[in-house]
Amino acid sequence: MKALYEHINQYTSIENEDFQKIMSFFEVKSVNKKEIVYNSGSKDLKHYFVGNGCLYMYFINDRGAEQTLQFAINNWWITDYLAFQNNRSSEFYIQAANPSLILQISYKEQEALLLEFPKMESYFRHIYQTAYGAAIMRMKYIFNYSKEEIYFQFRDSFPDFVNNVPQYLVATYLGLSPEYVSKIRKKKFS
Amino acid sequence: MKALYEHINQYTSIENEDFQKIMSFFEVKSVNKKEIVYNSGSKDLKHYFVGNGCLYMYFINDRGAEQTLQFAINNWWITDYLAFQNNRSSEFYIQAANPSLILQISYKEQEALLLEFPKMESYFRHIYQTAYGAAIMRMKYIFNYSKEEIYFQFRDSFPDFVNNVPQYLVATYLGLSPEYVSKIRKKKFS
Repeated sequence: MKALYEHINQYTSIENEDFQKIMSFFEVKSVNKKEIVYNSGSKDLKHYFVGNGCLYMYFINDRGAEQTLQFAINNWWITDYLAFQNNRSSEFYIQAANPSLILQISYKEQEALLLEFPKMESYFRHIYQTAYGAAIMRMKYIFNYSKEEIYFQFRDSFPDFVNNVPQYLVATYLGLSPEYVSKIRKKKFS
Repeated sequence: MKALYEHINQYTSIENEDFQKIMSFFEVKSVNKKEIVYNSGSKDLKHYFVGNGCLYMYFINDRGAEQTLQFAINNWWITDYLAFQNNRSSEFYIQAANPSLILQISYKEQEALLLEFPKMESYFRHIYQTAYGAAIMRMKYIFNYSKEEIYFQFRDSFPDFVNNVPQYLVATYLGLSPEYVSKIRKKKFS
């Protein structure tokens, strides 16, 4: 899991020997497209690192549609953090949008990892700091732009992101329906 | 600054002697109601801890209205994290909603603090983990509820929060206009 090793070393420095021990806290898993990684209400919520692929977290809204709350593409982490840190089940679903290679770690194992390797505190501090900053920026997009503007503004600002996840997920991530995004894209290019 | 001492010790353990050294990285500041703590575009963006009072971060939207992105009441932190971690200026404003007693730390000082006291990595890791989890939950509220439901749902779930900040801030935090919240509150109680 070279991806995680390199990602950790972007933020802190870990020897290869320590990394082997760190890896022993994780479970490697290969998941299929559309496979549910975590099922709403179940007891095995973990913290997931995407080495390759795409996971997303969603709930079913009052109108019966999937509403995406979070994404993870290569080198990113995902879980319901409030549930995870309280070691309880989540109301959300976590699913693979594409075939993915992931690492997963339970709450207990992560706590043990952080105790044994305090450098990992620094790694996760950086990860969460960026994730929280990005969540606030997403809020700015949602509040500041009209329904039509938000999709194109977001796509222009984060082209890699938009090109690496299915379009229906980008739509619901921005609070738009996939049908609406299809329509405005067609309009723009017609 | 007993508030910070106690808050740190909720997540990690710091001796009183170390805490004195930790405090030397911070600047204590008393700010008036409506005082601007950070002015959009200026070079002195810091990370702010509210010992007592209320700070909020906002931008001026395309219609000329303040749009709140984040709050900090007692024992909470606030800044534009993406700008802060890149040590650059922010496009947002940070202002006091009430008279507040705050601690502030620059990016360089915070980096030095984390190097000298690695336990603070664990403290900030917890803080950001919770903040990020809460930001995702806020997204759920914004996406799942109608304009009228969202205010009352939010108020019922977080009564302390809603009671401790001015109502116009809660409104724009939820993407509603203050006038709209006034109207639905009157309707509910009439």
